Amino acid sequence: MIEAFQNINKVFESKVRLGIMAVLMVNEDVDFNTLKELLSLTDGNLASHTRALEELGYVVCQKTFVGRKPKTSFQATSEGKKAFKAHIEALENFLKST
Amino acid sequence: MIEAFQNINKVFESKVRLGIMAVLMVNEDVDFNTLKELLSLTDGNLASHTRALEELGYVVCQKTFVGRKPKTSFQATSEGKKAFKAHIEALENFLKST
Repeated sequence: MIEAFQNINKVFESKVRLGIMAVLMVNEDVDFNTLKELLSLTDGNLASHTRALEELGYVVCQKTFVGRKPKTSFQATSEGKKAFKAHIEALENFLKST
Repeated sequence: MIEAFQNINKVFESKVRLGIMAVLMVNEDVDFNTLKELLSLTDGNLASHTRALEELGYVVCQKTFVGRKPKTSFQATSEGKKAFKAHIEALENFLKST
């Protein structure tokens, strides 16, 4: 149990970050509003967690315009995907051992 | 994925709380120092999380003396065990869906 426990990544402790990464693992590119609705989050909550993931290099953010409307979308980086996979593995091993 | 995500209990987001509860699920009664060493935590870190779990009614704390030495030990309450099991289930379902 203890080894799996130590491998749990504190970055992904937050349920919101877990949700963001899970969505970005299976969708190449997801815009802010879709992510917000999928995870039932407020703008501020989503923005603060995507910013944290961006700062870690786990997520990249693109701002474009659709007509006159600004659109923010997110992608997981390969580093982010790797870190998330390792976290999920640690979490699964931890759960198996409980 | 979304339903499992919503059922993840924010109380157990923290890796430390996850570890405390996992240990208390399989051990009836665990003292402070054992818990601290098992999870490689500092006194302050462990104390703040056990206090939070106590306040939620998920854990009870007993202070006794062994000779002249004070000993603090913890037990999970049935409410705590139930909440933790539900969380683990939600987490497992979430992981399966990712």
